[in-house]
Amino acid sequence: MTPPDGTPGLSVGVIAVGDEILEGRILDVHSQHVSEEMRRWGAFVRWHFSLGDSPGELVEALKLFQGKVDWILVTGGLGPTADDRTREEIASALNLDLVENGDAWREIHQRLSSRGFEPTENNRKQAFFPRGASILSNPNGSAPGFAVKTADGTRIFALPGVPHEFRAMFEEHVVEELKSYGGLSRLQGEILDFVGVPESRLDEWVSSKVPSSQLYQICVRGWGQIEVRLPAGLSLESDAAEMFGARLIGTGGFPVEEHLVERAMEAGLSLTTAESCTGGMISSRLVNVAGSSRVFPCSWVCYSNSSKTRELGVDPALIEGHGAVSQPVVEQMALRAREKSGADLAISVSGVAGPGGGTDLKPVGTVWLALATENQILSHCYQLHGDRERIRSLTANLALLGLLAAVRGLEVPGWSEKRS
Amino acid sequence: MTPPDGTPGLSVGVIAVGDEILEGRILDVHSQHVSEEMRRWGAFVRWHFSLGDSPGELVEALKLFQGKVDWILVTGGLGPTADDRTREEIASALNLDLVENGDAWREIHQRLSSRGFEPTENNRKQAFFPRGASILSNPNGSAPGFAVKTADGTRIFALPGVPHEFRAMFEEHVVEELKSYGGLSRLQGEILDFVGVPESRLDEWVSSKVPSSQLYQICVRGWGQIEVRLPAGLSLESDAAEMFGARLIGTGGFPVEEHLVERAMEAGLSLTTAESCTGGMISSRLVNVAGSSRVFPCSWVCYSNSSKTRELGVDPALIEGHGAVSQPVVEQMALRAREKSGADLAISVSGVAGPGGGTDLKPVGTVWLALATENQILSHCYQLHGDRERIRSLTANLALLGLLAAVRGLEVPGWSEKRS
Repeated sequence: MTPPDGTPGLSVGVIAVGDEILEGRILDVHSQHVSEEMRRWGAFVRWHFSLGDSPGELVEALKLFQGKVDWILVTGGLGPTADDRTREEIASALNLDLVENGDAWREIHQRLSSRGFEPTENNRKQAFFPRGASILSNPNGSAPGFAVKTADGTRIFALPGVPHEFRAMFEEHVVEELKSYGGLSRLQGEILDFVGVPESRLDEWVSSKVPSSQLYQICVRGWGQIEVRLPAGLSLESDAAEMFGARLIGTGGFPVEEHLVERAMEAGLSLTTAESCTGGMISSRLVNVAGSSRVFPCSWVCYSNSSKTRELGVDPALIEGHGAVSQPVVEQMALRAREKSGADLAISVSGVAGPGGGTDLKPVGTVWLALATENQILSHCYQLHGDRERIRSLTANLALLGLLAAVRGLEVPGWSEKRS
Repeated sequence: MTPPDGTPGLSVGVIAVGDEILEGRILDVHSQHVSEEMRRWGAFVRWHFSLGDSPGELVEALKLFQGKVDWILVTGGLGPTADDRTREEIASALNLDLVENGDAWREIHQRLSSRGFEPTENNRKQAFFPRGASILSNPNGSAPGFAVKTADGTRIFALPGVPHEFRAMFEEHVVEELKSYGGLSRLQGEILDFVGVPESRLDEWVSSKVPSSQLYQICVRGWGQIEVRLPAGLSLESDAAEMFGARLIGTGGFPVEEHLVERAMEAGLSLTTAESCTGGMISSRLVNVAGSSRVFPCSWVCYSNSSKTRELGVDPALIEGHGAVSQPVVEQMALRAREKSGADLAISVSGVAGPGGGTDLKPVGTVWLALATENQILSHCYQLHGDRERIRSLTANLALLGLLAAVRGLEVPGWSEKRS
């Protein structure tokens, strides 16, 4: 947990307030977001803490932690109701009065009136802040946040817990302030997105390319995706492409499906899918990219054997002879989906996602994928591990990576060509 | 955060150990899981704390928190590598020696040997535990956990962070132990699953039915689902069905798609979908239920207008005249998907998921759903809010709820019949 360049960096603690977190009703995703962003900007999160709404809880926590980190970010508890006590508790922990801010009150009043609500006394309490605090405007909601400093120099930021309000205010007020710290400017360069390269291998390669006086970061994302953040002014994209081929999926810190849709648009290529065990998961990830309608016309979920034959014309004798989870069947699925849709590229999958249905020859996790292009069919059999949901998600990711390699005219790592 | 019956209950703190959490590489999901389970069993989580792997961090945290809760659950840091220091740190915080457990070492040795690995000195350290600790067996991995009591009576459980190891051990060792506490037996009754009923309304109804001396719990889950846990021996299912109709979706604490697949199996009914803006999300949720192949043959993702016509035979004049997001178009999609698939029930959706594509008449979030059964078509237009992903997920949930109501022969709340 030491910064990559050995300097201590700004240290940060995150406190999430709300009974709903401690009751397990909601997952605290803000702390992860803060951690990711802080890491990007060269600051270091020392701890996350979640506590409830009961009086005194936050006061106690602030007393425990103040002076031990440079910044404390508090999320939640800024609403108008009685159980929202963040402003009172911070004031109490710091021995400060709560004073009304006239501008904030006018803004709250105006926002509510414009929506036809009469502000209540409860709303008025949202205009009170610890004496000396800076008000942090909230363009998306009624509760402004604030920042205030403890006697021993810890800076406390209080932000609302509502996700879109929190995100926007964190970006505007906290990240902006981070910019006055050292770590920031050193990491505003190129971001390289990789899939399937071990972190250690990547670190070895990057460290040989970045001057030793400069900072870089390697972040592991979901599904084997890994991103490298380079110092400003250094471009390694073409070097990386030469070294890692299709395993460099793009730049900018985007997930596979974003790169895929963008590259397909650039190349003027359209895509389709024929899914069995993934059941629409691949197409759903494609469609979640805004603008995907320009490259994705339609797709098929053929879960039953008979629908593979009826909708995609897979020869029943192939299913009978080789089973639905087999190379000849996924190849026909891809070929026919490509023809029927009129798309340039088709990917198909058929696998045993479990928990039942596995055999000695085809255990749970056996997944065939095939890719049909204008003049070839590539296919590969994977042996995946995990529960049903994990096997299906990994399969969807592998399918998207296969399509992405094909769109870029690159070899799909490990896949073999059947015929051309 | 006080227990529903006013008694204090067992209080619990959760500590998650790992730099990967503080760096934002992974989301701490174990703490939420512990919170949910504890709440179910009548115990109360006071806080979650995440900290890094550096020496001394966990010692400091345990000193801060011991004596303030009855139990502390520590997850992570039990692996064989040097940065895994949970056993050393707990021993240090409690001033206990680490002593080797012969049985644990033999088990680790055997497990590794059977996989063809020679155990290293690092593995050996996994057989050391604070003096006096109880060993908690780990059937899924090499690192056993342990439980130990501090001088002031706080019970500390140390469990591995690897998800499937953690889950199994939590269930076997921690939940089992919870059973010796009072809260448990009072909440082992029926669980009622509702969708679309406000928590306050439900609380009013349940409190009028449960004797005041008995405990019940109301937990809000994702997507408007809410579950009521009743004391042992009380059944309110038929009362609830009478009062809330299709808004009671079942019993047992399961998500909509599980109820849907189970009810469809019972009723001998099969299902299909024709999806535009959801892009396969509905079928994917169905397919994630193990055994869904018995009720789900196939489905279509028709994202482009031309594929709606080509694959499902939607009249191009309807699309031209009313737009793809319209009642006549979704009705034809549902009708034709039902016919082509041979399924008993078909649901179709077409909507504006954003961020672009909205108009004054059909703003972002406008979503049409239609349901075709043997003798009727029902449809409804929703106006949803949120980003693209949220609008699509809400739509999928509404579609699954529509299918579930139909499978149960109930009215879909708010939907209107077009013709019979």
